[in-house]
Amino acid sequence: MAERAADNVVFIGRKPTMSYVMAVLTQLNDKGQTEIKIRARGKAISTAVDVAEIVKNRFVKELVYKDIKIGTEELEGENKEKLNVSTIDLVLGK
Amino acid sequence: MAERAADNVVFIGRKPTMSYVMAVLTQLNDKGQTEIKIRARGKAISTAVDVAEIVKNRFVKELVYKDIKIGTEELEGENKEKLNVSTIDLVLGK
Repeated sequence: MAERAADNVVFIGRKPTMSYVMAVLTQLNDKGQTEIKIRARGKAISTAVDVAEIVKNRFVKELVYKDIKIGTEELEGENKEKLNVSTIDLVLGK
Repeated sequence: MAERAADNVVFIGRKPTMSYVMAVLTQLNDKGQTEIKIRARGKAISTAVDVAEIVKNRFVKELVYKDIKIGTEELEGENKEKLNVSTIDLVLGK
């Protein structure tokens, strides 16, 4: 499973929250990104918000939300039925 | 448990998603609100996003996000320890 589409995007899945916090911090510190996008869908949306808030409040206090986008994606289920799933994109920047 | 602080606020908890969709629609239709705030914290954040997207995409298509706020609240746990919980406020309006 691809965890990243581009270097400054972190996709949230089912790992523990802190492993995504580490991924975001790595992007910001080691790779010198000044903006980071945190993406999630479905139940992982709550984790995405937790990750953004932990990074912002505990680790990189100059970060602010540059953009917050909410949407819906259509997926195909096992029996070709259509499923709608909510998505969130959180852009944090300095 | 108080489910509503004010008439145009719907707090998301552990009920099925569609019961909150109905609550939002009731506010918008019966009570003539032109703006509605959907609030949630912790794991219910994903449900809040689902509720907003379902209302917006399936029922009241002229709604747009007027505001999206993300934050952190400090709660006191059972043993008086401090717990941080993420929050979301979604404002939908016509």
